[in-house]
Amino acid sequence: MGSSCGENLRLTIFGQSHSSAVGATVEGIPAGERIDVERLRAFLTRRAPGQGELCSPRQETDEPEFLSGLRDGVTCGAPLTVILRNRDARPEDYDSIKNIPRPGHADYTAWVKYGAARDYAGGGHFSGRLTAPLCAAGGICIQLLEREGVTVRAHAAEIGGETEPEAMEAAIRRAKAEGDSVGGVVECELRGVPAGLGDPIFDGLENRIARIVFGIPAVKGVEFGAGFASARLRGSENNDPFKLEDGRVVTATNRCGGILGGISTGMPIVFRAAFKPTPSIALEQESVDLEAMRPAKLRVGGRHDPCIVPRAIPAVEAAAAIAVYDALLSHRKERL
Amino acid sequence: MGSSCGENLRLTIFGQSHSSAVGATVEGIPAGERIDVERLRAFLTRRAPGQGELCSPRQETDEPEFLSGLRDGVTCGAPLTVILRNRDARPEDYDSIKNIPRPGHADYTAWVKYGAARDYAGGGHFSGRLTAPLCAAGGICIQLLEREGVTVRAHAAEIGGETEPEAMEAAIRRAKAEGDSVGGVVECELRGVPAGLGDPIFDGLENRIARIVFGIPAVKGVEFGAGFASARLRGSENNDPFKLEDGRVVTATNRCGGILGGISTGMPIVFRAAFKPTPSIALEQESVDLEAMRPAKLRVGGRHDPCIVPRAIPAVEAAAAIAVYDALLSHRKERL
Amino acid sequence: MGSSCGENLRLTIFGQSHSSAVGATVEGIPAGERIDVERLRAFLTRRAPGQGELCSPRQETDEPEFLSGLRDGVTCGAPLTVILRNRDARPEDYDSIKNIPRPGHADYTAWVKYGAARDYAGGGHFSGRLTAPLCAAGGICIQLLEREGVTVRAHAAEIGGETEPEAMEAAIRRAKAEGDSVGGVVECELRGVPAGLGDPIFDGLENRIARIVFGIPAVKGVEFGAGFASARLRGSENNDPFKLEDGRVVTATNRCGGILGGISTGMPIVFRAAFKPTPSIALEQESVDLEAMRPAKLRVGGRHDPCIVPRAIPAVEAAAAIAVYDALLSHRKERL
Amino acid sequence: MGSSCGENLRLTIFGQSHSSAVGATVEGIPAGERIDVERLRAFLTRRAPGQGELCSPRQETDEPEFLSGLRDGVTCGAPLTVILRNRDARPEDYDSIKNIPRPGHADYTAWVKYGAARDYAGGGHFSGRLTAPLCAAGGICIQLLEREGVTVRAHAAEIGGETEPEAMEAAIRRAKAEGDSVGGVVECELRGVPAGLGDPIFDGLENRIARIVFGIPAVKGVEFGAGFASARLRGSENNDPFKLEDGRVVTATNRCGGILGGISTGMPIVFRAAFKPTPSIALEQESVDLEAMRPAKLRVGGRHDPCIVPRAIPAVEAAAAIAVYDALLSHRKERL
Repeated sequence: MGSSCGENLRLTIFGQSHSSAVGATVEGIPAGERIDVERLRAFLTRRAPGQGELCSPRQETDEPEFLSGLRDGVTCGAPLTVILRNRDARPEDYDSIKNIPRPGHADYTAWVKYGAARDYAGGGHFSGRLTAPLCAAGGICIQLLEREGVTVRAHAAEIGGETEPEAMEAAIRRAKAEGDSVGGVVECELRGVPAGLGDPIFDGLENRIARIVFGIPAVKGVEFGAGFASARLRGSENNDPFKLEDGRVVTATNRCGGILGGISTGMPIVFRAAFKPTPSIALEQESVDLEAMRPAKLRVGGRHDPCIVPRAIPAVEAAAAIAVYDALLSHRKERL
Repeated sequence: MGSSCGENLRLTIFGQSHSSAVGATVEGIPAGERIDVERLRAFLTRRAPGQGELCSPRQETDEPEFLSGLRDGVTCGAPLTVILRNRDARPEDYDSIKNIPRPGHADYTAWVKYGAARDYAGGGHFSGRLTAPLCAAGGICIQLLEREGVTVRAHAAEIGGETEPEAMEAAIRRAKAEGDSVGGVVECELRGVPAGLGDPIFDGLENRIARIVFGIPAVKGVEFGAGFASARLRGSENNDPFKLEDGRVVTATNRCGGILGGISTGMPIVFRAAFKPTPSIALEQESVDLEAMRPAKLRVGGRHDPCIVPRAIPAVEAAAAIAVYDALLSHRKERL
Repeated sequence: MGSSCGENLRLTIFGQSHSSAVGATVEGIPAGERIDVERLRAFLTRRAPGQGELCSPRQETDEPEFLSGLRDGVTCGAPLTVILRNRDARPEDYDSIKNIPRPGHADYTAWVKYGAARDYAGGGHFSGRLTAPLCAAGGICIQLLEREGVTVRAHAAEIGGETEPEAMEAAIRRAKAEGDSVGGVVECELRGVPAGLGDPIFDGLENRIARIVFGIPAVKGVEFGAGFASARLRGSENNDPFKLEDGRVVTATNRCGGILGGISTGMPIVFRAAFKPTPSIALEQESVDLEAMRPAKLRVGGRHDPCIVPRAIPAVEAAAAIAVYDALLSHRKERL
Repeated sequence: MGSSCGENLRLTIFGQSHSSAVGATVEGIPAGERIDVERLRAFLTRRAPGQGELCSPRQETDEPEFLSGLRDGVTCGAPLTVILRNRDARPEDYDSIKNIPRPGHADYTAWVKYGAARDYAGGGHFSGRLTAPLCAAGGICIQLLEREGVTVRAHAAEIGGETEPEAMEAAIRRAKAEGDSVGGVVECELRGVPAGLGDPIFDGLENRIARIVFGIPAVKGVEFGAGFASARLRGSENNDPFKLEDGRVVTATNRCGGILGGISTGMPIVFRAAFKPTPSIALEQESVDLEAMRPAKLRVGGRHDPCIVPRAIPAVEAAAAIAVYDALLSHRKERL
């Protein structure tokens, strides 16, 4: 189905890149939680476009409007719906490439799945614009998690193959200058997650986090703890020994990324998401005219980021917060 | 909740390592599908232990017993339940380490989550034994997918850092001789998947496959197509150009792994799963006695694999088949 | 969780009686369906208040605003979100009875469940106002069902114990004049439903329809076909004999209400929903002051209907259409 | 999909009337709960056939076999699977009527839905036999609810139009002597349910209970509290006034059946389910030969109950217990 997820925190994302609004409905937030709208606004601003020469100049203020779920700024137990108007929509930008799918985008697969009725403008429901309501929902979950002692922090671990901030920025500039784009890796850490969250088999924290993180466009890989590197370690190197610290059980190392058997160990949860380079590039590309069914060349106009990673960082935090807060709510029911 | 997944194909996995049986219930298989039990048995044998010096000597014939869902070997539309008896169960092997969690296993997190009532024998419901019913369900899905023209094949892409079969085997032998273990990477390819399967955002094929593959114990990373490597490519290198081939739209390369916007392109679906080294090793390890709350050393006895990758290959195929067959069933409802 | 339902048509209802809007998100509508907004508006008007002396004078034009899911008035495959602004909200009407639960309403149970943070104005999320987005979603499903040859019609079968229209109206007038209220029974019929829709056990058409119809406030009973009366029949009277008619299998009678084993027979689906009398009455009632924890009397002000049945008729049609259209979508996947 | 239900208690029912076993998997039972198997056996015996001249002579001892989820008789947190072998299966009894659907049964609709592959023996997955695993799951929930202070009791309120035990029995005898059958009404009461259980709109207790009770074959109506009778009351008669009793808020009457706005009031939950007369009767009936597509007469052989109500009573208790225990588990997560 696609646009909803969650067990005891149920999230539904709606909207298209150029519809009148994008938004999110969140069911399951306990009543009595005050939402700090100023902070949420600040969080959304980290994701918003139009903030500098290295990102898309599309202007969206991303002012959250709450349609339901609050009374005097406090959750009342009813589903919370927050919308963000699409103010700077320019669907006409996309008319020229309506029948020529952009490589690396969902244009072709959306055409196969939905046919002529698809909303092709800006990728429609597949657009990165949909990370705005994801961040609105996730920004709220971050606030709720903090009240439980959990913090969520992500950063760019790698951009264009570079791992130092200055080199990363230079890589983006170079790509931009050449009409090209670069990808990268976002690393996220959650501290303070109590031990015991998550479930066996299909609802482990890895499964839950991966399911939502793969919901961010351009993510092509997710790994936890030592991840793919652990495949090259010996068991004696990769196993995290248990020890006591201030009367608590901890692990001496954290190669498992804070998760064993799908369940939190109480150590920081650490994961990385691989982002492919932005598929929208200024260079000419080969494609196909789906109406005429013949080869076609295209050059993607519109307003795009030469690297999506900087703006994706809050989206990764949001995704992680949604997954972990849901696991936290599910966890409670198991205790009398 | 953990042990069930799926949208229009609903799978529930039950059993513990040393309960009287493990099993799977699958709802949603269309009526009229003949199950080739011989082939299923052969598929289960690829996963079964006791098959050579490099794998656990536990003897399980893994004979599938169908409790429901079939009439004369053909699906009748009712939920299909298949069980595999645990014949060579030895729960007493685990009594000595009941209170001393094995590093890298779910022993500690299961203790936190379920307390004294947990089934600690052999990891209980967290055991690799649960991949047997996963393979039973997945082996059936593989048969059903083949009737739709889809093939599923996985192989070991890397073991202990080695990529050549002989070197992989040597790496396992070395680790075993040293009482240690190695991990690896399984690569899986699905050919013949029609374009248009999958959904936006949270139910893309990446999300669906990752959710189930992370259900295989020891998986710590999943990547699609170029995956983490795509993070180091330029957009101009990573984008797969569209072209026409025999009147069909295809991509000239397949760095996206056959998935764009969560939806199949019609090209092969390719993904890799990282397996950590088997946590059970013969070497002495540091742990904690959870009852006495003091440091403890342990040496894991029991019957274990120095590398789980060879036996995990069918489990990865099973997981992929379950995810993709579910997406296929969901896809049909969208067409009149 | 409460505010969402459905399998392949997923509906989420949000809003409170006096929040800025109420709305619905519907996932799963196939792409390419034109929504006739004029007809939807007309359908919503049947439910809207302010239409005569026998119903609440609250003025709500119930103009549907589509935030997403459409392109040029046609569904594009993305979740469809429609909202209805609450224009004539007067939350202050309810301040005086904030701590004194109205008998027959959800005020007391909402207080127990959500505590002080609940939205008590007009019943909050429990208000009959939430049938507006239900009707918006259901009105769309009615249009979609008609394209499949299915019609949905409900009518008042009984009001205040009367079964003739004039007597029903007189019963409402009498109750209103006395500051009291009356209940009634709505009967709904769906014609043209193909045989084979529905599922065994928990997702039969009875279960699916009942689950949604009980979502309409004031419904206290649901019965199918002969319903409670069938409990007094002999098997030989109640069984519907099969016969052939124009080469099709039909039943000579339809005491089963078009459903056997949870699955449609192809005959009209017939059910009845019992509505209790509107709990808001002008007469003085006994209650409790929840803050002072002492007895209290109250007289319900605000704007209310002496009988909810006339305005509930489209809500029953909407509920039935949502349930049956979901079953129809689920049905398709079972056919190759 | 049909055979599973529940939110935080997830139940899956499998098996056919004449498959090798019927069974249930229950996910979500907290770890540490001892199952009293003797009591469960006694509960199952109330439902079992072969117990007297007024019920089906089919011999099923219904001995529960636990495949998973327990360690030493105590729940361990993993999914609990319990099966009941079908020992006295006689699928050949049904060969003669394979193509002639029995009026009032699911034979015809199963044929439409599943085609030739359906399991027609004894109704397959639609059989009343499936109430055995429902009772196994529900019997466990009854034990768990009792530990929370909740009792569940159902009784026959009406059989064949009679409300006195002796008259009911006489009605069954008369019907049996005439080769016919009678229906009835089962009333169920749950005492000790804490206030605050249930959710708004689609997951109210009415919706939850109705969804599962309609899963019992032959149920054609469900009503809560005054139910259909409330449709004939005035609001001033039907509203339950609140009052204080020993410092607790209670209602002076309980016409709402202990549920307001879908949420428990703390008063007894009361509902009634209408059972149609057993469709299997010895009298000759009109039907159709689905292969030859011509009229056919049939006389139902096999082993049947002239009235299902006595054996359905534990099934109603089971259904109610499953619904309410699930709501209880869901409720907990909302409290910190």
